Amino acid sequence: MKKILITGFEPFGGEKINPAYEVVKNLGKIDGVELIKLEIPTVFQKAPKLIFDKIEEVKPDAILSIGQAGGRTSITPEVMGINLRDARIEDNEGNKPICEIIFEDGQDGLFSTLEVRNIVENIKNAGIQAELSYTAGTFVCNDVLYSVLYYIKKNNLDIKAGFIHVPFILEQVIDKRNTPSMTLENITKGIEIAIKTIAS
Amino acid sequence: MKKILITGFEPFGGEKINPAYEVVKNLGKIDGVELIKLEIPTVFQKAPKLIFDKIEEVKPDAILSIGQAGGRTSITPEVMGINLRDARIEDNEGNKPICEIIFEDGQDGLFSTLEVRNIVENIKNAGIQAELSYTAGTFVCNDVLYSVLYYIKKNNLDIKAGFIHVPFILEQVIDKRNTPSMTLENITKGIEIAIKTIAS
Amino acid sequence: MKKILITGFEPFGGEKINPAYEVVKNLGKIDGVELIKLEIPTVFQKAPKLIFDKIEEVKPDAILSIGQAGGRTSITPEVMGINLRDARIEDNEGNKPICEIIFEDGQDGLFSTLEVRNIVENIKNAGIQAELSYTAGTFVCNDVLYSVLYYIKKNNLDIKAGFIHVPFILEQVIDKRNTPSMTLENITKGIEIAIKTIAS
Amino acid sequence: MKKILITGFEPFGGEKINPAYEVVKNLGKIDGVELIKLEIPTVFQKAPKLIFDKIEEVKPDAILSIGQAGGRTSITPEVMGINLRDARIEDNEGNKPICEIIFEDGQDGLFSTLEVRNIVENIKNAGIQAELSYTAGTFVCNDVLYSVLYYIKKNNLDIKAGFIHVPFILEQVIDKRNTPSMTLENITKGIEIAIKTIAS
Repeated sequence: MKKILITGFEPFGGEKINPAYEVVKNLGKIDGVELIKLEIPTVFQKAPKLIFDKIEEVKPDAILSIGQAGGRTSITPEVMGINLRDARIEDNEGNKPICEIIFEDGQDGLFSTLEVRNIVENIKNAGIQAELSYTAGTFVCNDVLYSVLYYIKKNNLDIKAGFIHVPFILEQVIDKRNTPSMTLENITKGIEIAIKTIAS
Repeated sequence: MKKILITGFEPFGGEKINPAYEVVKNLGKIDGVELIKLEIPTVFQKAPKLIFDKIEEVKPDAILSIGQAGGRTSITPEVMGINLRDARIEDNEGNKPICEIIFEDGQDGLFSTLEVRNIVENIKNAGIQAELSYTAGTFVCNDVLYSVLYYIKKNNLDIKAGFIHVPFILEQVIDKRNTPSMTLENITKGIEIAIKTIAS
Repeated sequence: MKKILITGFEPFGGEKINPAYEVVKNLGKIDGVELIKLEIPTVFQKAPKLIFDKIEEVKPDAILSIGQAGGRTSITPEVMGINLRDARIEDNEGNKPICEIIFEDGQDGLFSTLEVRNIVENIKNAGIQAELSYTAGTFVCNDVLYSVLYYIKKNNLDIKAGFIHVPFILEQVIDKRNTPSMTLENITKGIEIAIKTIAS
Repeated sequence: MKKILITGFEPFGGEKINPAYEVVKNLGKIDGVELIKLEIPTVFQKAPKLIFDKIEEVKPDAILSIGQAGGRTSITPEVMGINLRDARIEDNEGNKPICEIIFEDGQDGLFSTLEVRNIVENIKNAGIQAELSYTAGTFVCNDVLYSVLYYIKKNNLDIKAGFIHVPFILEQVIDKRNTPSMTLENITKGIEIAIKTIAS
């Protein structure tokens, strides 16, 4: 039985739901996996801090964070987090860091320790679009990815961790012109496959 | 009972299947509609000629042709056919017309006579991406659209006609990078809604 | 000496300049051409009406209208105007026609009577990006294109007419992410070549 | 007087010229800068090795490598190199490494030590499109970027280094559809500004 902590972001701005967390909520029971779901705010530092606390509480074997990257066509496991906060817009509490280092004693970049390549292959084999991504940006998603990898390394923990960006959910783009999306059903299926890959 | 002729293209080049025709094949029984399915070749003039013959044979109330527009994210009913053949690549029999008028006595452009706006609304209401398109290009898809509209007008027939482009089917893009697609299930559902709209 | 009427749109909304008219203003003397420059408002019906009046006043040999299509990478002569007004946003006087026919007695579509293909070739030969476009949309640009073609046909005038969309000017996109543009210099050079092609 | 080593790639495949090296060749004298131009092959390991040798030979103050990223609209200084080779296509000598670590004792990622943010600002202030990029991919461009940063760090050298991707040059895309480009003149001007920023 593998204990996997999965995180998704709270509703952002005035929106009722956050599609990334919808995916997390949508996940059912997975054989051989104890799934711990955690909703985190779209707030620099606070989001990773909540995960650090949860790590101490539940001692997971692996951590998978889910975020949304509107405009992408595929489920995209991120290869690397970078030691940089650089926001074009404010986060949910009004922070807008410009070109800040996340951890002074951190390396410039840290690879995801999930089997990103296998995750992509397994999702594709199920007939769902997946690709590696080499940049998670410099907003809260990357803040979570880098900070969690840093925390695990710093504290010498035996926990695999990483981040997967998902496309817009079909429902979100009905009135957007020429915008790619994926059905919630397929995103959920893809993330389930990712979890099984991590657990195996 | 409305008699609706629906056409899709034969496999193109060396491919085993043509996804556009897969959609047509995939369509089940629809209440109040007698659906006549016709496979047509991706060949200038031949494709519309086959439809003309079928018109005489079955006397349909409406004609809906389906083609694929890879790269689009939505199901897109075409607003207009234009009196022009202009190919960048060869059709299935090696024709590559450059800047040819389709019918010397035809108008420059002809509007689809389907309720394209209602079709878009109804598909979107079912939670599936749809948008109007104002150009069907100048390859065989437009050859079919314009020629059928011309034939109906020329012969004063009481038949509604039009063309709908569909995105790549998910299966086709698994190994393509950053390419939008739609599930065959949702494309089929969207086309069913289009047919019901036409029949109503 | 060919008399060519060239039109560009007035500043739109609160903006100080309209880049499309900047191109028109930027045009210098062209051998063998009497160039008549006309600024027109981004207003349905009013814009074409101003051109109709100018036609009667100056009796041009040809009319070339310039508009902007942000997001395109090339100078794009339009192949066809369509008999349809359908606005997503308000024009400069608050009009937002939905699915309106422009002229009840007009054909569905009318081909530009400029040598669009030669224009594209000549601009490309000068090392500047150009492509045909098969849709000028359904906003004021198309209103101008279709209406002018209709007016000329209706009144049996011996005037060639058409529309060319140009990309964003480099200056406009400096703070936009990943948005294609062209230098004002190259757009101007391209439009000069178009005018020479029309005059020849 | 700052000594700056600038590199560009040799012609790739059967092509006569490599646009990235055209930019390098095109650079004229810059006040206060001794510019050393180096052509490097599009070959994994060989390209960085040539730069290592040149470093020992000329002892530069800074190294700027130029590569092409077709499809981008802007001049894009890269923020980070990653310790990974992962090729979709063969390099110029038939190598196609899949998911290889570049240096076993290297960190996962290394930040460019150029003032990438100032470079972007200065290029934009000159009216030319520029943006930061957070991924240089995993082909030879990244191999050069990461390896040079690694070599400098490993050997404790006092050399700034980084990589800038440039768009297609206008000449290259004349027959490509809807592909963004920049004039060679503006790319050259942008790279000159980058060099002045590095030298200042």
